[in-house]
Amino acid sequence: MKVQVTQENLARGLGIVGRVAGGRTSLPILTNVLISTDKNQLRLAATNLEIAITQLIGVKVETPGSITVPAKLISDFISSLPAGNISLEVEDSKLHIESDNYSSTINGVSAEEFPSIPTVESKEPLTIKTTNLKDTIQQTVVAASSDEARPVLTGAYLHSEDSKLYCAATDSYRLAERMVKNDFKKQVNMIIPARTLSEIQRIIDDQEELQLHYDESQIMVRSGDTELVSKLIDGKFPAYRQLIPAESEVTIKIAASELLSITKVAALFARESAGSITLEVDKDKQQVSIASVASQVGENTSTAQGKVQGSGKITLNSRFLIDALNVIHDDEVKLRFSSNSSPCILEPLGKEKGQYQHIIMPLRS
Amino acid sequence: MKVQVTQENLARGLGIVGRVAGGRTSLPILTNVLISTDKNQLRLAATNLEIAITQLIGVKVETPGSITVPAKLISDFISSLPAGNISLEVEDSKLHIESDNYSSTINGVSAEEFPSIPTVESKEPLTIKTTNLKDTIQQTVVAASSDEARPVLTGAYLHSEDSKLYCAATDSYRLAERMVKNDFKKQVNMIIPARTLSEIQRIIDDQEELQLHYDESQIMVRSGDTELVSKLIDGKFPAYRQLIPAESEVTIKIAASELLSITKVAALFARESAGSITLEVDKDKQQVSIASVASQVGENTSTAQGKVQGSGKITLNSRFLIDALNVIHDDEVKLRFSSNSSPCILEPLGKEKGQYQHIIMPLRS
Repeated sequence: MKVQVTQENLARGLGIVGRVAGGRTSLPILTNVLISTDKNQLRLAATNLEIAITQLIGVKVETPGSITVPAKLISDFISSLPAGNISLEVEDSKLHIESDNYSSTINGVSAEEFPSIPTVESKEPLTIKTTNLKDTIQQTVVAASSDEARPVLTGAYLHSEDSKLYCAATDSYRLAERMVKNDFKKQVNMIIPARTLSEIQRIIDDQEELQLHYDESQIMVRSGDTELVSKLIDGKFPAYRQLIPAESEVTIKIAASELLSITKVAALFARESAGSITLEVDKDKQQVSIASVASQVGENTSTAQGKVQGSGKITLNSRFLIDALNVIHDDEVKLRFSSNSSPCILEPLGKEKGQYQHIIMPLRS
Repeated sequence: MKVQVTQENLARGLGIVGRVAGGRTSLPILTNVLISTDKNQLRLAATNLEIAITQLIGVKVETPGSITVPAKLISDFISSLPAGNISLEVEDSKLHIESDNYSSTINGVSAEEFPSIPTVESKEPLTIKTTNLKDTIQQTVVAASSDEARPVLTGAYLHSEDSKLYCAATDSYRLAERMVKNDFKKQVNMIIPARTLSEIQRIIDDQEELQLHYDESQIMVRSGDTELVSKLIDGKFPAYRQLIPAESEVTIKIAASELLSITKVAALFARESAGSITLEVDKDKQQVSIASVASQVGENTSTAQGKVQGSGKITLNSRFLIDALNVIHDDEVKLRFSSNSSPCILEPLGKEKGQYQHIIMPLRS
């Protein structure tokens, strides 16, 4: 293989695919990036066997060929070089890299030993607006679990119901659900790993729409010259809908920023008690007050005004409430609950009204 | 104690003194900040028994008094509050904090149990230009040791010699020396902990000059309403001057940015060999080339043009060369050495010419 490429293109491409290479892996070749010519382009690819990313970049191919080299080393190296032309040449299992003042050899491994990169092409892919997809990912992934003991909870559940497309994630202590599409006729039902969604968010560029290709076990997304393929999570997502009460006895409508700021302050005093804070909604005073008590260090009460119906108390994990408020973009939110033994529901009241809900299970106070 | 204070002043003051509180300490009260009234001001103080910082802030004192409370909690708490007036009131060993929507109690410890904060007032303090002091600290502290086994090397040596004031630091593998004052008549000789110098750099504000008060065992610096007192390091600094050769056989004058960039690239290939890179200065080609070999991963050679006298090779720790180049502000530098068994000297060639030198001991290649 011999190609001419610009430092800018190669550095950008390696940056995109490099993130899935390496990490904790028992297969050393997965720390490498696959570099191969593809007609008059260069294909960069990396995989962790769950997610694979490939990136095509424009190059001048003098001799076709391929090799794999350590992803981190070549990525750090190429991004340290000044802008300009770079020549890449494979000889045996070595990659020679030449540019104006730099000459390097990186020891590689034959491309034949690299796992094959799968792809999926649906006849009828899902088309989603990019902004919508970005918001959906941001607003749901936060509630996904990181506990590998229950794999289905480490993903987000993309599914159709009542002619709508929803995305939901839960770690069993909290749940986030976002409506992705209205008036949706297809039948869709898949659990996408949260990590895959985060990587998809990273590769989305300025395009207006994105197409989601999928089959029984995989999804594929293409953005510009980048292609991401991921396994889906096998299993059945919990029937969460029945857990969300339609009505609640206590409701407060409040500025999201004020609720966030009093929650953050209360959280400082809740470090000893694993983040436990108690919200008291008071109809007479039309306010919510948040109390946290750290027996060792002291105690705090913070209050904010809102529009209140009903009075009551609920004890929540402050981190969950902060996480939820951080992903809601609307200025005003509604928080509702009935008692300390039923869920607390947080919803946006602006543009996103009716599209998103975030449910937090109470702590025993 | 009862005082009224603005959130802005209190948050700023706690931010300044808070950094020396806490850390690894066997004396729990050192994680606290001392809060006490001082006439019509509030004095905040923290100490780690090596460095103490006190900060005066303007307040409205209703009742004088004092208390100590956990520095991190009160600092995080006050900085989370919105701007505006805050009331602080001590009752028994509790500090009550009230502002518009927030009401907190922090459990404290009596101020009597707090170590006394020393001070030093010299009749003839050293006066140093702030910009000069900042550069001196930045350019010397980088070479100080972090190995507590040889305490004198964890500090910077401020000393007079030949009517000049110098500051020097070394970890025995490299040495940085900066001339602080010319035409200096006093006799000065002290070893200031590197950590103290970093803290001094942090508290210096926009004033033009700074006065260094000192006695046998302590120094004190005052900047605005902030006062820092630190112990000096007891011991004898190595007689380093004799180790710096006046002349070298090989010299290259080169753009600092180019030398830095080829060193950084070479360092990527030197991770396996503990950062070891070999510089080859070539008189015929008027260039320096840096080679690094990582037997496992590959090898690299980078070159840059310069004005060369003499030819030769030297093997250095790439991190030390990067550190040195990062603290030199001039565009052009001179690098000189005689062989791989004598020191390599790096000097700025612009405004800072003659004021700074950075010596790096070679590695056995």
